[in-house]
Amino acid sequence: MHRTQVKVAEDALDANTTIATANRADFDRHGVSVVNFMSAPGAGKTTLLERTLDELEARVGVLEGDVQGSADADRLSALHLPVVQLNTDPGFGGECHLDANMVRSALGDLPLEELDLLVIENVGNLVCPAEFKVGEDARVMVSSITEGEDKPLKYPLMFRTCELVLINKIDLLEHLDFDLDLFLYNLDAVHPGIEHMLVSARTGEGTGAFREWLAGIAARAPAAA
Amino acid sequence: MHRTQVKVAEDALDANTTIATANRADFDRHGVSVVNFMSAPGAGKTTLLERTLDELEARVGVLEGDVQGSADADRLSALHLPVVQLNTDPGFGGECHLDANMVRSALGDLPLEELDLLVIENVGNLVCPAEFKVGEDARVMVSSITEGEDKPLKYPLMFRTCELVLINKIDLLEHLDFDLDLFLYNLDAVHPGIEHMLVSARTGEGTGAFREWLAGIAARAPAAA
Repeated sequence: MHRTQVKVAEDALDANTTIATANRADFDRHGVSVVNFMSAPGAGKTTLLERTLDELEARVGVLEGDVQGSADADRLSALHLPVVQLNTDPGFGGECHLDANMVRSALGDLPLEELDLLVIENVGNLVCPAEFKVGEDARVMVSSITEGEDKPLKYPLMFRTCELVLINKIDLLEHLDFDLDLFLYNLDAVHPGIEHMLVSARTGEGTGAFREWLAGIAARAPAAA
Repeated sequence: MHRTQVKVAEDALDANTTIATANRADFDRHGVSVVNFMSAPGAGKTTLLERTLDELEARVGVLEGDVQGSADADRLSALHLPVVQLNTDPGFGGECHLDANMVRSALGDLPLEELDLLVIENVGNLVCPAEFKVGEDARVMVSSITEGEDKPLKYPLMFRTCELVLINKIDLLEHLDFDLDLFLYNLDAVHPGIEHMLVSARTGEGTGAFREWLAGIAARAPAAA
């Protein structure tokens, strides 16, 4: 029984990788760079996007992943960007992550040929989103200081598979017992040398650096075929 | 392909229900009440247990669920309670929840006959833990005010399947833009009449009421067979 379950899981990941590769080919054909944007629930992903995407020097679109509802997509639509909402609710009781096939199902609703950058805001979860490639160029995760210093040690795959960690809600530092040095020590233990930025989605602190980073990723994209 | 996946998912939930029923029978035989304790990562579950379990008027044990590591179990062991760590890491890339079979695998390491209450601290995640019964009497979830007002709408199953919501980090209320009335409105929209408590694991505010609530659950257990 146990072996059968593992086999099913491996098949699912194999199928996911195949579809992620197909997504990647489509993104390349249209000259679009793709960021998979991940965090725990309530870490501030959407607010960070609100802060950075409006003045970004690139043509950007967003794919919003949520179990249910369209609140985040509605917020980002106010920036007059192409935004597509993807709900995972019809899946197995509500899927806890986006996979390559879900992303693929939404690609037809996005004007890829008009974009330099696609940001995929994943479902709020520190486990499974890290296991499913969707065809992205880079992974960014947000870790809020209100979540504590131990998160890299408890969710190592997430911290290990991203290129950038945004340490958010830094405006609350003086009101918390959070030990930033300890967090950075734990982060370095699971992903040595990983780039990080201290940001506050609320005050805007540090979000300029993230905007520049996103512009750099957008500039990576090959010319459209 | 899609139909096959759904079938696999249904089979997995059916198997889970069967094993949860077996767990439940074991708990009843030993006269133990069981609480499934859930939240997003970093919402404060472990700190709330540290605050409440030491002076609880009941014999309590803890089953600690984490993807990896034993930091939380180590913290709770300081209370001189029976604590068993359950890591989900050997599963499919690190399971994002506890299921009935994982809990069952740990029952032999717990002195059930000496307990009135078992608290199962689930993996930090607002999606899948709500889908898997483990044989519990009651579900409690912790929602930190730093996560925002929209969480009941975005993760409705979690909020709908629990008996009590602890609204944690209430000591930070004056430092956030959090609208408590809006959160309560959203909570009531997905789970009308659900009991809630305002608490601060950091200052201890409100944790006495939660301790009494847990004592009430412990007292629900039938006498051991």
